Amino acid sequence: MTRDTAELTKEALDDIPLAKTETPEELEDLALGDDYALNPDYVDMVIDAVDSGDLKRLRELVTALEPADVADLMGFLTADYREDVIPLLDPEALGEIISEMDENLREEVLEATPSVTLARALEELDTDDAADVIDDLDETKRFQVLAAMGETDRAAIETTLSYEDETAGRLMQREFLAAPEFWTVGQTIDHVRDAGDQLPELFFDVYVVDPTFKPVGAIPISILLRSRRETPLAELMEAATEIDVGMDQEEVAYIFDKYHLISAPVIDPGGRLVGQITVDDIVEVIRDEAQEDILALAGVSDAGRDASVQEIVRSRLPWLLLNLVTETIAVSAIAIFQDQIAKLVALAVLMPIVSSLGGNAGTQTLAVAVRALASKELTAANARRIIVREVLVGLMNGVALAIVMGLATFLFYHNGRLAITVGVALIVNIFIAALGGILAPLALEKMGRDPAVSSSIFVTFLTDFMGFLAVLLIAALLMG
Amino acid sequence: MTRDTAELTKEALDDIPLAKTETPEELEDLALGDDYALNPDYVDMVIDAVDSGDLKRLRELVTALEPADVADLMGFLTADYREDVIPLLDPEALGEIISEMDENLREEVLEATPSVTLARALEELDTDDAADVIDDLDETKRFQVLAAMGETDRAAIETTLSYEDETAGRLMQREFLAAPEFWTVGQTIDHVRDAGDQLPELFFDVYVVDPTFKPVGAIPISILLRSRRETPLAELMEAATEIDVGMDQEEVAYIFDKYHLISAPVIDPGGRLVGQITVDDIVEVIRDEAQEDILALAGVSDAGRDASVQEIVRSRLPWLLLNLVTETIAVSAIAIFQDQIAKLVALAVLMPIVSSLGGNAGTQTLAVAVRALASKELTAANARRIIVREVLVGLMNGVALAIVMGLATFLFYHNGRLAITVGVALIVNIFIAALGGILAPLALEKMGRDPAVSSSIFVTFLTDFMGFLAVLLIAALLMG
Repeated sequence: MTRDTAELTKEALDDIPLAKTETPEELEDLALGDDYALNPDYVDMVIDAVDSGDLKRLRELVTALEPADVADLMGFLTADYREDVIPLLDPEALGEIISEMDENLREEVLEATPSVTLARALEELDTDDAADVIDDLDETKRFQVLAAMGETDRAAIETTLSYEDETAGRLMQREFLAAPEFWTVGQTIDHVRDAGDQLPELFFDVYVVDPTFKPVGAIPISILLRSRRETPLAELMEAATEIDVGMDQEEVAYIFDKYHLISAPVIDPGGRLVGQITVDDIVEVIRDEAQEDILALAGVSDAGRDASVQEIVRSRLPWLLLNLVTETIAVSAIAIFQDQIAKLVALAVLMPIVSSLGGNAGTQTLAVAVRALASKELTAANARRIIVREVLVGLMNGVALAIVMGLATFLFYHNGRLAITVGVALIVNIFIAALGGILAPLALEKMGRDPAVSSSIFVTFLTDFMGFLAVLLIAALLMG
Repeated sequence: MTRDTAELTKEALDDIPLAKTETPEELEDLALGDDYALNPDYVDMVIDAVDSGDLKRLRELVTALEPADVADLMGFLTADYREDVIPLLDPEALGEIISEMDENLREEVLEATPSVTLARALEELDTDDAADVIDDLDETKRFQVLAAMGETDRAAIETTLSYEDETAGRLMQREFLAAPEFWTVGQTIDHVRDAGDQLPELFFDVYVVDPTFKPVGAIPISILLRSRRETPLAELMEAATEIDVGMDQEEVAYIFDKYHLISAPVIDPGGRLVGQITVDDIVEVIRDEAQEDILALAGVSDAGRDASVQEIVRSRLPWLLLNLVTETIAVSAIAIFQDQIAKLVALAVLMPIVSSLGGNAGTQTLAVAVRALASKELTAANARRIIVREVLVGLMNGVALAIVMGLATFLFYHNGRLAITVGVALIVNIFIAALGGILAPLALEKMGRDPAVSSSIFVTFLTDFMGFLAVLLIAALLMG
């Protein structure tokens, strides 16, 4: 419907660049569903506009969106369509749109954008976001873009890039509001009104510093706003939670989450204030780190929304090959005892149940342990208690399942020894699963490795191997 | 060491309640490691203080901590030790400490605290946090606590509780800063200075409202602070992202994340401003929802750090029993074709590899799909493209693994038909795994269900069943 209207008025619009069939507000309502996700119909409208070469309509559709929604839109288009949309983007918004994009998409767009345009776009961003984008450029282009930027912006970005990836130094903005202890509320507000441009657009705390620029406290600006002008800052400030510039971003996220921080001062090794981290960057870190755990537990790294089939295969096949190796080792237990199976084929039927239940119980323990480690609910202070508890849980679950499966086996096969074999094998395997599920992530954490990565492949191997071995070995002992 | 010092001076301290062996700052340094997690040694110091009945030392140790750290400390103590610590907590901090606690722990502490103490403690909290705690009380106690609270606080909490759990209404604070369009910056700041107590301690945006109290825009207070007093608000405001009071908290989190919001106005069905949601509550939601996904994919609900062995068994055994049922159905494929195994035991050895690889490939697809659905990268707009891509990935992975495993089988067993059997079975199973791994979560999402819950148990069943069936059926066809 909207499409038709646009077609009809297309000729008439040619000389009136700002005339519109819908207001930007109406378009935004069309674009976003009730859940603020991009509407598939709106993506189709964009595709139609490209197909019909209606550039005015296209610009209209794109400029009605927030940067985050334009980035989303790009993700839903194929590369051909994107090429038509990118040149229409407002240079002012381009930086933000790029910094909202997925990695794969971003690389493509960065390649297609001239260095000077990029330099202008990045100057509009906060240092941390601009550095993030610069970091994704190849060396030649990075050099060109930095050269095309203003002196101050370039220096700030280069300093940010000198910090390691995924540390506080990379997350922080170098713009913040600091004030000496002896200032009053009024002096601070006057300073803010005068200093305008040197301050970030958004800030949430005033950091109070001593003469050596070490933070001695912080004041939320809502407190500043409600206090009398003559109140000295020293009277209002509370202890600030300082972040070391080299701290891992996961640690920073933990601290923000724990103390409900909105912003925090970042200090260099000498204790001097060098930047601030704001909670909006942390929201991203928390989301990303949690998603990394989900993927790591499943033995997969996400190749991204716009990855090609080849890229995805490359990201998944290595884990599957590793799984092929571990599983080959696991089934060697079957190969060794295959005479038992030749004697009693029922063992081949029941064995996979024992392995599968073990795998499942191990994965449960593992997922709970990984979650508890990430939220520091599981630490050296209570590790022993949690291990003992998990082992007891494993024993109880094992006994309960053994009773059910033992009875079912007896009813079906009328073979008491077979029933006892699978029952005992289940108890053993679920016990081993509990032990592996809690010890593997704890060991990885202790070694300073990510407990989510590779522990699930180990636990699956362990429970498959033990499942096969326990059933066949017990069968050999009980039934000869 | 610290322990001894405390012992020695214990008598002397008895009449000087504020004398300390370390300053609170020194104690806080002792309490928290570099990673801001609670130090195991500090937990031991608290335990020592309880054991030796040194209440002064205990109070000293506890009051040096932030509420979040006291909540943590409680989690590391057993119930007996907690009973000694709780009466020492400062009533002012008690509310915050309780609201930082895990559910299990919180229930225990709430039971042990007198209603009047609780009422005072909850009055110190924001409405949303207080309502959360009240919601955990049994009916009798809830009535007593509400009756002991002031009229205004009680009414606010009752209104909050009238909204459904996990909606915007429950997350929002009913205290916020609103101003009419025609006010200037100066008028707004003066209003804040006068209205002091009716405003929340922390706020980040001024919501500009029309005469019917509908929000027409928002201004970050840092912008307010840097603008001249005579500037009209209408000139500074930008469109606010409004949140419906009934919106699911996961949607709210998505919007905050997408648009990098610090606070947002909440509107009732009539469009009137009724509250605000701040980002610190959202950080919690994002963390919790991501962790729920991890646990759901592993087929487990977390019983909490302080759950008993029985509680944990109750939370895990049902999933394992369900797994027992699905796996029994899966192995029926083996039971039907068990003659094949009797003829060639090697099939019993190779079959589990085919199932396991299928399960692994299915879990990879599933984890990526669940992540993409949660971040709305996978929607109706690109579902078809993603399904096609996953199926292609499945085929390519299947062929690659089939070549490796087929060759290995041939080298080991010198049986061409057996090698072809496992190769073809692998391709079939990995293809089915890809299809199941993407379609199961999409179907659940379409039905309005959580795509993480129960899809992994379905995919595992599917790939086990198909793995067994494919190997044995193809063996029957090829080898008779």
